[in-house]
Amino acid sequence: MNAGTSEGRRRTVDWGDDEVLAIDQTLLPNDEVVLHLHDVEALAEAIRSLRIRGAMALGVAGGLGVALAIRRAQERGEDVIDAAHEAAAILVKTRPTAVNLGWGIEHVLAALEGGAQAAVDAATALIGADVTTNRAIAKAGAELVYTELVDRRDAQLVVLTHCNAGALASVDIGTALGVVEELHRRGRVLEAIACETRPLLQGARLTCFELARMEIPCSLVVDSAAAGLITRGVVDVAVVGADRIAANGDVANKVGTLAHALACRHAGVPFVVAAPEATIDAGCPSGSEIPIEERSEEEVLEFAGVRTAPGGVRARNPAFDVTPAELVTAIVTERRVIRPAAGERCWP
Amino acid sequence: MNAGTSEGRRRTVDWGDDEVLAIDQTLLPNDEVVLHLHDVEALAEAIRSLRIRGAMALGVAGGLGVALAIRRAQERGEDVIDAAHEAAAILVKTRPTAVNLGWGIEHVLAALEGGAQAAVDAATALIGADVTTNRAIAKAGAELVYTELVDRRDAQLVVLTHCNAGALASVDIGTALGVVEELHRRGRVLEAIACETRPLLQGARLTCFELARMEIPCSLVVDSAAAGLITRGVVDVAVVGADRIAANGDVANKVGTLAHALACRHAGVPFVVAAPEATIDAGCPSGSEIPIEERSEEEVLEFAGVRTAPGGVRARNPAFDVTPAELVTAIVTERRVIRPAAGERCWP
Repeated sequence: MNAGTSEGRRRTVDWGDDEVLAIDQTLLPNDEVVLHLHDVEALAEAIRSLRIRGAMALGVAGGLGVALAIRRAQERGEDVIDAAHEAAAILVKTRPTAVNLGWGIEHVLAALEGGAQAAVDAATALIGADVTTNRAIAKAGAELVYTELVDRRDAQLVVLTHCNAGALASVDIGTALGVVEELHRRGRVLEAIACETRPLLQGARLTCFELARMEIPCSLVVDSAAAGLITRGVVDVAVVGADRIAANGDVANKVGTLAHALACRHAGVPFVVAAPEATIDAGCPSGSEIPIEERSEEEVLEFAGVRTAPGGVRARNPAFDVTPAELVTAIVTERRVIRPAAGERCWP
Repeated sequence: MNAGTSEGRRRTVDWGDDEVLAIDQTLLPNDEVVLHLHDVEALAEAIRSLRIRGAMALGVAGGLGVALAIRRAQERGEDVIDAAHEAAAILVKTRPTAVNLGWGIEHVLAALEGGAQAAVDAATALIGADVTTNRAIAKAGAELVYTELVDRRDAQLVVLTHCNAGALASVDIGTALGVVEELHRRGRVLEAIACETRPLLQGARLTCFELARMEIPCSLVVDSAAAGLITRGVVDVAVVGADRIAANGDVANKVGTLAHALACRHAGVPFVVAAPEATIDAGCPSGSEIPIEERSEEEVLEFAGVRTAPGGVRARNPAFDVTPAELVTAIVTERRVIRPAAGERCWP
């Protein structure tokens, strides 16, 4: 199985010569710069500042971060087990909501029982596994949407998505955008609508960049325009990614997702979540137990570096929201389709 | 009755020495510049470019625009009736969604039957009438919220609003922010949450400016954060303005309003619309007949000259959305409270 990228795209996160390579996502779409991250602190800082972001990319980066610590400890003649656990403690704190980060870290720590090289191998194996997983999600999601959820099988669809759950949120392919790409490959996409995703504009910057690169017709909208477009019948299906899914099917994803799900429910439009099994947190009973990351006020008070509000004004900046299971038509993973709105749980 | 502004504030729209005076709202909160508009074309351009905006301000400006045309025709010895109707035709086309604009224009045209001076008097009388109307709405709205809608009469409230329906959207006081100001005066406001209102950020620029000026504790949020805050129980009541209300109680307001109403319904939070009777369009049976203004793509693709999406990407930019009557707990006007969610219509 070729675990390389599709369409000649560079991998978003990769393992180089004993270092982590990552596309700096804060500089897209203007510049495509590859970061060379040589130690855990540099990687942690790249995650905190969202140079590396996206649930699956964080999972892989977390695992590679532990491998990075092991390699550095070996070079210095230090204890690799201590170094790996120290790295894990630093990395897991960088982003609280995405469960994949901790999953990738734990995966590599567990492999450490087989020795340092086994752990590094487990980490680098996450790269290819992510691509394989996303390819399976894309196929299953496209199949579900056009054979079952949308009632106009002969027609091309208008698909709405939020934030970026594309190749840039993973190693390659992505989840929600993987589904859109697969639908496009089958000639089923009339238009992809990308919500800009304030405050950090991942939709405008990253999703539009990816859709343009795939030559999929796309429109950018402000986040709050989605509900009106959905209720006016413009949108056939909404497909989004996820940062953590509770056992009952509640979905934490980028702030703004919930409003789209509410509008879809109101309008009878299917609302689909595409995510790997690793995003499902079996230990988390429901959305109310998912920690919601509160980010800096400055992200809201400024827009593209320009201050928007008068001085002295405060801001609230929850980076995620929780869409209750009852609003989620389907969760598509690499292994199964779960239908939370019909009462199906992810785990008992 | 003193028709001057409250708290020493400058009137947003006013009649000067045979000219229209208006605060340039595109320059706020950084600069408070008063425009002197001497002819109808200058006024029309100020409306198109949103230097003058807000439903009630547009109503008054429309009426004053006809007065402006009458004064200029008199100076040039031209026919005032022709001039007034020409002005009306130009002005009514500047913004399609807000019904108040046409209402103000028609009000002054009707007065023209009593002669040129009667029409000018009718136009300038709109200024004081707007303040009186908004004062009545503010009182009735505050009364409704804390004696009936919110179940914690002893507590201070967190009030969410969208866009700007304040003094800057009218001559003074405003509708939704008038209600917030009145609640604050009665010691009932713990926090006002202002949604930034992409794409043009009227919430960040104008509502935060007004809340700060009134010394009401406020938080700015991105529009898409509102749904999560509402469903997490942070918000006690949402109060917004309106640009046009259909006879059945469907409400057109700034894009983004609908998502807040859907979240309020989901969470059981009251959703209140504060608007003058003039905003109710008895001739419009339902929201599907309300024209939705589609504005320039550039408003979405850039901010303050900074492009957010890659080149070649298109945008959709509906400036308003329609909240169906079933989601509207109450509409408060200067004369009555209508409860659309309980099945009450604005007009038979």
